Amino acid sequence: MTDPVKLTADLIRCPSVTPEEGGALVLLEKLLSDAGFDCTRADRGDVSNLYARWGPKDHPRSFGFNGHTDVVPVGDEAAWTMPPFGAEIREGVMYGRGATDMKSGVAAFAAAAVDFVRDTPPNGAIILAITGDEEADAVDGTTALLDYMSKAGERMSACLVGEPTCPNTMGEMMKIGRRGSMTAWFTVTGEQGHSAYPHRAKNPLPAMARLMHQLASHELDQGSDHFDASTLAVVNIDTGNAATNVIPAQCTGAVNIRFNDLHSGASLSEWLQVEARAVADACNVEVDVRIKISGESFLTPPGPLSDLVAKAVETETGVRPEMSTTGGTSDARFVKDHCPVVEFGLVGRTMHQVDECVEVAQIEQLKAIYTRILQDYFA
Amino acid sequence: MTDPVKLTADLIRCPSVTPEEGGALVLLEKLLSDAGFDCTRADRGDVSNLYARWGPKDHPRSFGFNGHTDVVPVGDEAAWTMPPFGAEIREGVMYGRGATDMKSGVAAFAAAAVDFVRDTPPNGAIILAITGDEEADAVDGTTALLDYMSKAGERMSACLVGEPTCPNTMGEMMKIGRRGSMTAWFTVTGEQGHSAYPHRAKNPLPAMARLMHQLASHELDQGSDHFDASTLAVVNIDTGNAATNVIPAQCTGAVNIRFNDLHSGASLSEWLQVEARAVADACNVEVDVRIKISGESFLTPPGPLSDLVAKAVETETGVRPEMSTTGGTSDARFVKDHCPVVEFGLVGRTMHQVDECVEVAQIEQLKAIYTRILQDYFA
Ligand SMILES: [Zn+2]
Ligand SMILES: [Zn+2]
Repeated sequence: MTDPVKLTADLIRCPSVTPEEGGALVLLEKLLSDAGFDCTRADRGDVSNLYARWGPKDHPRSFGFNGHTDVVPVGDEAAWTMPPFGAEIREGVMYGRGATDMKSGVAAFAAAAVDFVRDTPPNGAIILAITGDEEADAVDGTTALLDYMSKAGERMSACLVGEPTCPNTMGEMMKIGRRGSMTAWFTVTGEQGHSAYPHRAKNPLPAMARLMHQLASHELDQGSDHFDASTLAVVNIDTGNAATNVIPAQCTGAVNIRFNDLHSGASLSEWLQVEARAVADACNVEVDVRIKISGESFLTPPGPLSDLVAKAVETETGVRPEMSTTGGTSDARFVKDHCPVVEFGLVGRTMHQVDECVEVAQIEQLKAIYTRILQDYFA
Repeated sequence: MTDPVKLTADLIRCPSVTPEEGGALVLLEKLLSDAGFDCTRADRGDVSNLYARWGPKDHPRSFGFNGHTDVVPVGDEAAWTMPPFGAEIREGVMYGRGATDMKSGVAAFAAAAVDFVRDTPPNGAIILAITGDEEADAVDGTTALLDYMSKAGERMSACLVGEPTCPNTMGEMMKIGRRGSMTAWFTVTGEQGHSAYPHRAKNPLPAMARLMHQLASHELDQGSDHFDASTLAVVNIDTGNAATNVIPAQCTGAVNIRFNDLHSGASLSEWLQVEARAVADACNVEVDVRIKISGESFLTPPGPLSDLVAKAVETETGVRPEMSTTGGTSDARFVKDHCPVVEFGLVGRTMHQVDECVEVAQIEQLKAIYTRILQDYFA
């Protein structure tokens, strides 16, 4: 039996702060090769990626796991009460950067896969696509793995991303989609002047206030079948003018939008441009808009894959997981273009925080869930 | 005859960058004492002030001139094409810091007064109240002179402030009042959060945008008999949040209001507080307001004093001056509590700028106008 707790500890002791490989993928490559997996390093740029397949290539039943071994920086190391790369266990809890996000998840699905192919070799293939860059830019991570697969004729017929998905209790939530995310930066340019003569200046600030007020007041939608309502958060307005007798020439602002399947990055960009132009015309200023779409929304509609995962979770934990689309982005946004994808992992409460930690029992439970998913998928 | 051009040059060569005396008041005290004026230094704090009276104390016909010898800093000295304290004349134009604001004005009224009391001693008193701090805080400047006068039983029955008042052409404008000025700083405090979950945070930025949009959209008035419409300029909004996935906890903003005689600092403060409270309630954030009233509006209604000045200007220049209340603040806001006050001086286009300069002919013309005002007042 492959011990997922020891494997989690071994991975935590690899200092794989994004985008450093830190020994984590090398360790996994050795484990998986020894277990009979075909391993390929699909590195790109500064990023290390590991593609591992057991069983025939391009089999119609090819179950994939996706995850990442890179971790966010330690942050304020002095604030940690346990060594961040020590993987020390105290009262049944293991501490370390990546303990929940997501070295435990990778360890659980790697251990489950290794034992499963040894004990009950399936009629099909099992694929592990593990990246060293999910936390940073993520441009050479899972994307590079998928590019490699497409070039090499490799395929997954279904995929589970092992990110932590449960807010508080093990088993309570899985993800069948994610909202899209985008940021828009606005620069409003007018003409500097003296506050005593505002009609001689063109003040960019009332225009910015009006634009931000309108964007923030607008209801994007009321939610859809599987999604909460889309949200827009004004995250910044800056001017940097300390002189109260001066009307400044320019100011900047930014909004962040999390959007559901009623919108697309393109439709929202068009809306923002129209609003910006309207304010520019009404206020006689220039409004420049720069937009970055981090990910479109996506949904794997409830069906065979999500039902199979939900059933396995319920059998092992006694809790029926909610099929949610909440939260930030994950690499599922890339996988969804390749095959049906859902996400399930353990409780993520301490992710990215000081003293990140995981209950040892949850790692074992997660391995049991992933094992049951494989059993049911290949049954 | 006292040469106002040479006197302007001598004053420019005194480096009286506010609040430095720089030799300017010492020079004037010598000139005026020699001409028979009783001189008193009404210094306070770091500020030097000169009070000079010719004639009996507390005479019912006591004509006063008010002005300042301090100047704003040179700024980017490398950008000056002439030495800023050189008073060099090129093609009939004298260059230097204070050339228009307002060493030429002080030189013109001092020269006019000295020659007038020598050639046609009036039945009454002539008072020169000259401060070394108008450009900076102005708390120990003309205010200190007026405090001294009140304590010493000194009085002016009318006063002319010699600040530059003409936008482009000599004689075209005098001032019979000024709008009030105030600044309000707002701090909006909410609760920090993640942009993906705006309902868990309290975003201060939409509240700030809404408040600034409402303040900027509000029409304070449409002007009054002698005043333009009051204006409100949003001069700053700052947040300093570069992380687009973070909703910030706090942001700050500021507005500057120039208000006419339909308002007071108190009535506008009350309005701002009400608007801030309404937004705080509507947006569930805290809004803190800090207000500084720099000066209330005031008006010396058209009457004997303004008519006398206007007639003198028209006689000397051929131009009938507009009786205006436009522009920023001046020390007339203090004098108005003491006696009727108007303002007239030369073209102020280059004031506070690099290569500040004055047409030599305008200094002579200004002396002639001030002389005629004295003649008519004591006629
Ligand atoms: Zn993660
Ligand atoms: Zn001045």
